[in-house]
Amino acid sequence: MSGTLGIAVIGTGRMGSDHVRRIGTTVGGARVVAVADPDGDRVKEVAAGLEGAGAYTDPGAAIAAPGVDAVLIASPGPAHEEAVLQALERRLPVLCEKPLTPDPEGALRIMEAERRLGRRLVQVGFMRRFDAEYERLKELLDAGGIGRPLFLHCRHRNASSPAFFTGDMLISDSVVHEVDAARWLLGQEVTAVTVLAPTPTSAAPQALGDPRFVLLETSGGAIVDVEIFVNCGFGYQVRCEAVGESGTARIGDGHAMVVESGGRWGGEVVQDYTTRFADAYDRQVRRWVAAAARGRVAGPDAWDGYAAAAVSRAGLAAARDGVRTEVRLVERPELYAAGRD
Amino acid sequence: MSGTLGIAVIGTGRMGSDHVRRIGTTVGGARVVAVADPDGDRVKEVAAGLEGAGAYTDPGAAIAAPGVDAVLIASPGPAHEEAVLQALERRLPVLCEKPLTPDPEGALRIMEAERRLGRRLVQVGFMRRFDAEYERLKELLDAGGIGRPLFLHCRHRNASSPAFFTGDMLISDSVVHEVDAARWLLGQEVTAVTVLAPTPTSAAPQALGDPRFVLLETSGGAIVDVEIFVNCGFGYQVRCEAVGESGTARIGDGHAMVVESGGRWGGEVVQDYTTRFADAYDRQVRRWVAAAARGRVAGPDAWDGYAAAAVSRAGLAAARDGVRTEVRLVERPELYAAGRD
Amino acid sequence: MSGTLGIAVIGTGRMGSDHVRRIGTTVGGARVVAVADPDGDRVKEVAAGLEGAGAYTDPGAAIAAPGVDAVLIASPGPAHEEAVLQALERRLPVLCEKPLTPDPEGALRIMEAERRLGRRLVQVGFMRRFDAEYERLKELLDAGGIGRPLFLHCRHRNASSPAFFTGDMLISDSVVHEVDAARWLLGQEVTAVTVLAPTPTSAAPQALGDPRFVLLETSGGAIVDVEIFVNCGFGYQVRCEAVGESGTARIGDGHAMVVESGGRWGGEVVQDYTTRFADAYDRQVRRWVAAAARGRVAGPDAWDGYAAAAVSRAGLAAARDGVRTEVRLVERPELYAAGRD
Amino acid sequence: MSGTLGIAVIGTGRMGSDHVRRIGTTVGGARVVAVADPDGDRVKEVAAGLEGAGAYTDPGAAIAAPGVDAVLIASPGPAHEEAVLQALERRLPVLCEKPLTPDPEGALRIMEAERRLGRRLVQVGFMRRFDAEYERLKELLDAGGIGRPLFLHCRHRNASSPAFFTGDMLISDSVVHEVDAARWLLGQEVTAVTVLAPTPTSAAPQALGDPRFVLLETSGGAIVDVEIFVNCGFGYQVRCEAVGESGTARIGDGHAMVVESGGRWGGEVVQDYTTRFADAYDRQVRRWVAAAARGRVAGPDAWDGYAAAAVSRAGLAAARDGVRTEVRLVERPELYAAGRD
Repeated sequence: MSGTLGIAVIGTGRMGSDHVRRIGTTVGGARVVAVADPDGDRVKEVAAGLEGAGAYTDPGAAIAAPGVDAVLIASPGPAHEEAVLQALERRLPVLCEKPLTPDPEGALRIMEAERRLGRRLVQVGFMRRFDAEYERLKELLDAGGIGRPLFLHCRHRNASSPAFFTGDMLISDSVVHEVDAARWLLGQEVTAVTVLAPTPTSAAPQALGDPRFVLLETSGGAIVDVEIFVNCGFGYQVRCEAVGESGTARIGDGHAMVVESGGRWGGEVVQDYTTRFADAYDRQVRRWVAAAARGRVAGPDAWDGYAAAAVSRAGLAAARDGVRTEVRLVERPELYAAGRD
Repeated sequence: MSGTLGIAVIGTGRMGSDHVRRIGTTVGGARVVAVADPDGDRVKEVAAGLEGAGAYTDPGAAIAAPGVDAVLIASPGPAHEEAVLQALERRLPVLCEKPLTPDPEGALRIMEAERRLGRRLVQVGFMRRFDAEYERLKELLDAGGIGRPLFLHCRHRNASSPAFFTGDMLISDSVVHEVDAARWLLGQEVTAVTVLAPTPTSAAPQALGDPRFVLLETSGGAIVDVEIFVNCGFGYQVRCEAVGESGTARIGDGHAMVVESGGRWGGEVVQDYTTRFADAYDRQVRRWVAAAARGRVAGPDAWDGYAAAAVSRAGLAAARDGVRTEVRLVERPELYAAGRD
Repeated sequence: MSGTLGIAVIGTGRMGSDHVRRIGTTVGGARVVAVADPDGDRVKEVAAGLEGAGAYTDPGAAIAAPGVDAVLIASPGPAHEEAVLQALERRLPVLCEKPLTPDPEGALRIMEAERRLGRRLVQVGFMRRFDAEYERLKELLDAGGIGRPLFLHCRHRNASSPAFFTGDMLISDSVVHEVDAARWLLGQEVTAVTVLAPTPTSAAPQALGDPRFVLLETSGGAIVDVEIFVNCGFGYQVRCEAVGESGTARIGDGHAMVVESGGRWGGEVVQDYTTRFADAYDRQVRRWVAAAARGRVAGPDAWDGYAAAAVSRAGLAAARDGVRTEVRLVERPELYAAGRD
Repeated sequence: MSGTLGIAVIGTGRMGSDHVRRIGTTVGGARVVAVADPDGDRVKEVAAGLEGAGAYTDPGAAIAAPGVDAVLIASPGPAHEEAVLQALERRLPVLCEKPLTPDPEGALRIMEAERRLGRRLVQVGFMRRFDAEYERLKELLDAGGIGRPLFLHCRHRNASSPAFFTGDMLISDSVVHEVDAARWLLGQEVTAVTVLAPTPTSAAPQALGDPRFVLLETSGGAIVDVEIFVNCGFGYQVRCEAVGESGTARIGDGHAMVVESGGRWGGEVVQDYTTRFADAYDRQVRRWVAAAARGRVAGPDAWDGYAAAAVSRAGLAAARDGVRTEVRLVERPELYAAGRD
């Protein structure tokens, strides 16, 4: 393998094309070398935007294409098993969008294939495990920060559900995220499920049975409750409050994790600008790279550098002399006119 | 230029080596092809971690190296001007860490070089303009969401300042960020500066004169006040409250922007999972790429996919039958033992 | 009845003596004229602190005492029915601490007594209905602010439970508050109850079975879930999140009610200083009355009035002249020395 | 003096009549025995609502009326001095609305009168000192919870100002509250004032010069900045952030005090239901007293007591048996029909 990981992306629908974009902009050390989709026009269009990537209508052909080091599967769920097994035959690492397979039996067959290889190569796309807030909550729970967990109170709300959404998908497409998050956060398996149904909202087809209240019991004696409400009308929300023997912790409320313990509520203050502005630094360089490739500037320019230096000089005088100090700038050249791109 | 932007990084200190890491992990479409630092050992070490990158002790040589399409300057401030001018001679786009130059005169010389080229190629590293919260505030102000701005109330706090920090640097290194942010947010120039000094904190050398209260007046009649406190002890904070004729907006408080107007306070609810979990998706693929390059899995594996499918199946039965439904799993294979990497 | 309501307080334990204090300090237009408690010493001690109040060991005698216009019952639950019926015989208004009676049958007998009188005279001490946050939530729900209610998610936590607390009291003493609050907020009756038990906390006797998760179904098809946790360790919390067809509203989180609807989250900004400082005005006059009764001052004194006037004068000059203006005070007389009570 | 403090209220405008209402409803141990106002009709109307209170057009006559134990002055500022001196002649405790006097000289004459009496009898109505949030902040500062104070950042905003409001009143009527609060919180005197003026808002007459930014310097070397903005449009806000050598504390933001120190932000969790629901208990008894005086019930009635007992019984069975348990109620009698007052 060269220094850059060659990836085959299987499926170029919403998720797949988003992954293609992602690998080209916010992921270092990788590039897409093959894309596959049964829709031949779409896959050609996607490949056309990528330098040197092949377009395929057959997933197996894309997986077998030259330069493929790993496979990202974003095709519909029923197609996952075959693609995963083809990748495993070639001993290629796989990132497979959830669900791994629609049914447990398919997943067992994938596990059997890995067993024969003697190693794990398959990762499932439960992305919440990579969310910064979930990561903080997991760290806290693992460190015993709130004691043994007793409850997870979860809210999962969408503004509205698409036309094809069914009552079953409330469980298998939506609550499945909480199932994985609960298993991961607690390090326990789910042992029983109960589903309660209030009178459904009038804002969605009654057959959908939206919202529902799902109760999970776990192998460690914790209780997980999930409000799943996919037509709440006002937005997208994923919240989780963990209640332990000695405190609680909440995430997903538009702010950093809030912990309650020892008579206090609150959170940690960030200690460093590299943490606070990590995303800003990343975004700055990404936009500059994209602009520089077109010979452009995408942020503060030399005039801004000049003005900052001039104000600094006046500020130093003001601090030294203890008096109000005026700032004098040269006339702004046309090249740096405001609003100019 | 090929499909990947070749970058020369000038300076491999804290900021420079962080940019090298960034370009390798969280930036797509670019790679470092040359690094320069007067410390020959350090620059060789940094280059050794990069495939095919040259190491230089002379910035000019790095800038002139083959494959260099753009230059990122992270050397000390006094060295900026020369490196920027060398890049401009080659018409290369430049991202220069702040300050562009320590004094206004140097910046004017850079502007003159750009004028001769007839185009802007220099971007200054005021990264706050790329912070998601600042971007939201800028959008709100530009859209007139709180009317004409009257005040910006700014807080800039560090847990502690390094030994080399001086009273002048409170202005030229710290408050300069608020100077640029205020100019950008308001679209106005700073016309006067006043600096007030309370009795300094006893937690820092008295000569530092920490904290200070800096007042900026702007060309549009707004007032900007900045508390600069680099030994506050408890953490790093950058906050800004804009007060306009019809409302206020605050950022930097550990949560999403809060707006007060029309008799209400609050903010916007995210509308989509791709927004809420954008970072999680990026991080998921980045970690998978890094792990896949070593033939590893870095997240939920096939067992997790299986368990989710089994709980989904039980959940669907529970929803259909209205009763508590137990989940039965096969025994967990050794390959998927908990805690295994 | 004279202009002041004469009240008999039955029971002088924690709640009863707190009510006696309350009537003497934060309630206008009323005074305690009789107190009853089986503990003769305690009741005499309480009465001694009240001007002209009689002390009784027999509740009936207190209720029949001269000047009694109304009865406040704060004796143990099993004693409530008899005292309420005695008050009803005299057609006296009653405020009875919860539970009205420990069992439904006793309450039915009280209702029968009221039916014979042809009027309601009994009020039950579910004080949450008078909490400002609950009142706001009730108003919002009644006004249809978040549409038809689908869920109430409730948290009820105590730092620790007293030694006499039992598992039954988790329901009958604690959750009963949520039962009343839910009935009131929704205007619906509870039709079914389910109780789930996670592995109990190790911080309390296992026999207590703390915490529990109680599910109430209501006549209007809503679901109410209550986490009752009386040994959470970190404090006292009562929270309620109502989820309706078009939004949510939360109270009990240490801040004003937060509503999510129409793509936004937030709350109302107070419009008036009489609202914002209503409690401060009340407390100011209460403390002044208590101090004045002893010929004392309990707040800012004439020196404070003087200093404010002097700073105001300097401030007016500073505003008029646009310059920093010094404040000159006379020497502070001994009578106004700092810290003097 | 009898057990109830007899109060003369001087001035029956907005503040005065509000105090009359307050003493009748939320203050125990006091009653209004005399009211004075130059508007004879108004004062008679106010007195008519009070049992046994005399109405006067001459403040001195009210102060000298029989049964007056203390004097509350809520007349216009220029009338304060004379009324205070009349009360002092009778050695009566005084609560005088701010300003004590419009000018420092008047205040000095009042201090001289107290000096002759050898005691302090005058309290000034700076009510913020009695606000629960300010009290918490004062306690924290006094306890050294955030170290020596360096800054107070204050915001004082009104939705709009009345027609009679002048630019001077921005300082003497509005900022004067911050002047007193700062002096009290810091235990320091104000030594200098500077006033900055941004371009005024277009939402108010330009002559008003609204908003302004007022800087106070104190005897202990702290700096207090006040944004005074009386036509902010969106509501009433009074905020204060104290910055000390080791932390910060904020009040006035719609939630309990937030402290930042030791690497964490947050606040205290209430420990007790008597604290959390103190106001609810007070309001419950106040409303019951007002209703009982009219023979009415003003809250949950016997039906509510019955329903709670019935649900409790079902809940106990549900907890014991581990199954969903239905609640059966008798038919609701007409006397307890929903919505009946």
